[in-house]
Amino acid sequence: MSTTAKANEGPTNPLVTPMLTDLYQITMAYAYWKSGKVNEDSVFELFFRKNPFKGEFTLFCGLDEILKFLKVFRFTKDDIEYLKKTPALKNSDAGFFDYLLKLDTSALKVRALQEGSVVFPRIPMIILEGPLGLCQLIETTLLNLVNFSSLVATNATRMVLAAQKVACIEFGLRRAQGPDGGCSASKYSYVGGFVGTSNIQAGKMHGIPVIGTHAHAFVQAFTSLEDVEELELLNKESGNTEKFLPHVLKHRKSEATNDSELAAFISYACAFPDTCLCLADTYDTLRSGVPNFISVALALDDFGYKANGIRLDSGDLGELSVQCKKLFTDSDKETNRHNLFDNVKIVASDGINEKMLNKLSKTKHNITGYGIGTNLVTCQAQPALGCVYKLVECKGKARMKFSQDAIKILIPGRKTAYRLYEDDKPLLDYIALAEENMPEIGQPIICCNPFVKEDRKTCTPSKADCLQNIVFDKGECIKPTLSLVESRKYVKSQMENFPSEITDFTRESDPKNYLYSVMVSEKLYNFLHELWKAENEKNWSENQK
Amino acid sequence: MSTTAKANEGPTNPLVTPMLTDLYQITMAYAYWKSGKVNEDSVFELFFRKNPFKGEFTLFCGLDEILKFLKVFRFTKDDIEYLKKTPALKNSDAGFFDYLLKLDTSALKVRALQEGSVVFPRIPMIILEGPLGLCQLIETTLLNLVNFSSLVATNATRMVLAAQKVACIEFGLRRAQGPDGGCSASKYSYVGGFVGTSNIQAGKMHGIPVIGTHAHAFVQAFTSLEDVEELELLNKESGNTEKFLPHVLKHRKSEATNDSELAAFISYACAFPDTCLCLADTYDTLRSGVPNFISVALALDDFGYKANGIRLDSGDLGELSVQCKKLFTDSDKETNRHNLFDNVKIVASDGINEKMLNKLSKTKHNITGYGIGTNLVTCQAQPALGCVYKLVECKGKARMKFSQDAIKILIPGRKTAYRLYEDDKPLLDYIALAEENMPEIGQPIICCNPFVKEDRKTCTPSKADCLQNIVFDKGECIKPTLSLVESRKYVKSQMENFPSEITDFTRESDPKNYLYSVMVSEKLYNFLHELWKAENEKNWSENQK
Repeated sequence: MSTTAKANEGPTNPLVTPMLTDLYQITMAYAYWKSGKVNEDSVFELFFRKNPFKGEFTLFCGLDEILKFLKVFRFTKDDIEYLKKTPALKNSDAGFFDYLLKLDTSALKVRALQEGSVVFPRIPMIILEGPLGLCQLIETTLLNLVNFSSLVATNATRMVLAAQKVACIEFGLRRAQGPDGGCSASKYSYVGGFVGTSNIQAGKMHGIPVIGTHAHAFVQAFTSLEDVEELELLNKESGNTEKFLPHVLKHRKSEATNDSELAAFISYACAFPDTCLCLADTYDTLRSGVPNFISVALALDDFGYKANGIRLDSGDLGELSVQCKKLFTDSDKETNRHNLFDNVKIVASDGINEKMLNKLSKTKHNITGYGIGTNLVTCQAQPALGCVYKLVECKGKARMKFSQDAIKILIPGRKTAYRLYEDDKPLLDYIALAEENMPEIGQPIICCNPFVKEDRKTCTPSKADCLQNIVFDKGECIKPTLSLVESRKYVKSQMENFPSEITDFTRESDPKNYLYSVMVSEKLYNFLHELWKAENEKNWSENQK
Repeated sequence: MSTTAKANEGPTNPLVTPMLTDLYQITMAYAYWKSGKVNEDSVFELFFRKNPFKGEFTLFCGLDEILKFLKVFRFTKDDIEYLKKTPALKNSDAGFFDYLLKLDTSALKVRALQEGSVVFPRIPMIILEGPLGLCQLIETTLLNLVNFSSLVATNATRMVLAAQKVACIEFGLRRAQGPDGGCSASKYSYVGGFVGTSNIQAGKMHGIPVIGTHAHAFVQAFTSLEDVEELELLNKESGNTEKFLPHVLKHRKSEATNDSELAAFISYACAFPDTCLCLADTYDTLRSGVPNFISVALALDDFGYKANGIRLDSGDLGELSVQCKKLFTDSDKETNRHNLFDNVKIVASDGINEKMLNKLSKTKHNITGYGIGTNLVTCQAQPALGCVYKLVECKGKARMKFSQDAIKILIPGRKTAYRLYEDDKPLLDYIALAEENMPEIGQPIICCNPFVKEDRKTCTPSKADCLQNIVFDKGECIKPTLSLVESRKYVKSQMENFPSEITDFTRESDPKNYLYSVMVSEKLYNFLHELWKAENEKNWSENQK
């Protein structure tokens, strides 16, 4: 079975099955089932309360995998056998296991943001309407699929913004949190604006461009120039296949450069004469790596090929890139080769994070690409996004969970959110009850802070987008999800269209006072506060004294 | 196909194939192939340079998945078709793709630490001997499989130490870095000493105990006591099936507790009368959750069942647990129920990390179990372990990579490491050339700091363990790997046997001055320094001026 074929049938990772959940979802489902509640209508929302990385925005991702999961959602007989033997469930009624075995997602309706959407705290990213038991059972899987995807896409976009037009490439597989920590990072950092990945599994599964050259071990594997004295290359100028080493040695200005490194570069050039990019820092970048690369590049030029560039993997990357560029320019001047090195790439890698990118962007450098691994794929600055999944309506009644902590108060009921624009720029997000009409263009709308009575304003939108649209109904996906390339474009267009203070990754946001407002309709405000009051009166009369 | 069946054939995660690697491994292999080096004998080592979490030790994990991967390692035709079309490889010789298609691991010999071993910086965790191309191709996959497994096992063990005998349960699937970020965390935190997981996929695949009760949504799903007035339970005392609600109401001391919460607890108790554990903090732990639980527990007792306990998911967990325990004790006194609540569990969850565990352990509390999620599974304190994979010998010649940074200098050559003991306690780890004899018990041995000439000492071991043993040869695993339960026991026994300053998780270690020494034999010291000198003389004569 090829992983590509599998990807078309179900989730990319075959571990994503109804069993990828917490035991308590099953025990709760059983208690619902025993209490006759398992098929009660329910509405759940998936959202988060704070942007990651102290930022102003988050990207929503993971919907594509969720839809693949929902489409094929079925417990297998094998799963049921396992569950029956689980100590927690061993005394459960047989009828419950029949229920599980027959359960599918045909009674589920899912509304969601578009993959790659810029999203803010409290905006429902996914709204699920369906039987209580089913909605409960899928909670953990959905959270797992959204949390990391959205986190790493957000991380990637912030890095792309920090890199300021310099291409970013994902190099993190080896340090990722497991195989699909790596593969998910490759996929969603591409959505976030990276140009490619080193991970060929991800490249094959998702059609992401794969990029890579060689490592230090490659340089170490050569011991002397004897290793490469027999290597031949087609000379496109002469049409003959010729030994390559003598041509390189012709251009070698000093024998003080490392021989084994030069041998490695020659080997690599003969293997990839059209795309030769050499790792220049195994011994000494400026005294050995770059001079060796220049000798090889000049020989390649003699043979009719253009060398591709170098990679720097240690040292002061910005300063080194400037000095490397100078060596290239000097060589061009000396050899009179028509600006041979003008477009030679200088790729930098070595523990790069957002802060370093930002610092590099502010200084003079000649880096043309960044290879970014650990900090990107493990989201070192904040390795988890705190998405939650909450019941907001059950059996037609809005449900809320009161909390002393305002940030944790749930906005109850079946809702829809809109993005309101002014002069084509996003102005604020506006949550209304699902039954309310869509905000009218050109008409003033009262927008309320759900928790602060005095904080309300009137705005007159020039445009309003409904954020959640039906993506899954009666067991089927409603429309094809965006391709990765489309999601990637969508991210880019949003980054360009949002006010710059929202996409300003250097600003540390205050979660209690985000620049971008998420407000509610007056009707929802009143509904929330009436429910809140009733909840207090019903259950807390005695305690409130 | 069941995931269990699959787990027996190959890696747990079907994404783990030879394609789970970096493109540069393939381009390097091609250059080796073109240069006639692809089958040269090589030796690679996998190790790390710094312990994670500023600690003194690391646990080695991931070997089981690596062996499963190596056993079935083959590129598929589909993989090769994909690679042929990759821009970087599109001009490559057809013979190379034949080489890849035919490549298996029959020429590979692997020596490794035992799964779950305590390991220190620079000790080779895995030593690979085989053809250069093959060893290069598997680098990324091996690093991916070791890095996170070892990191999360280490994190788990530190938390278990911090929890001081209180059981730790893994609850992190929803916040993990992807599906097998979650499943790997479940597996390796069990090895690290956790007692179980909430993740049923991991439970099913690996036979780990699964644990779980209910969530806030479950409580919210109930609106009033009417929801449960029909629920019946077998009264083991009378032998009759009776309505349960009236018995609970008999024990309810105040109607000020939340009705919907009480309804939820009654539903849960009727579903799980033998194992009823209730989440007590949805409304107010002490004024509603615990009193409601007590009413239900007393009614269960009337029916002949023992309630299991409560879970606290917010607030000051230590202080709350003490107050909950007091309510239980008060109830026991009042009701004269023969210490009904003596063994009732108080499970605490809510963003628990190592620091909180340590703080709780130092204060009075009555917590009997911790549910730990995000901080465990994403290793928030340090989300990546920096294992590297280095060429130490090629074509029979030792290879080294010189670096200005002492910590990055490679110890060259084919080596073996030993753990030397004094009075049955580990004293230091000692790396020797593979050709050297095993240290003799009772004989003095000179142990050298590889980089500081003056730092050497003589020790007389009472015991010496060879750390790396052959685990894979000629395409086959040499002996069955430890089961998870065996690895878990092995971790525990090591934690008990290492000197307490090594397992002291509260101490911040200095990576330049670890308490536990990793030293080399005098022969290896001399070999390293001769090679180093020769390397300098050969290539740097001019630059050294």
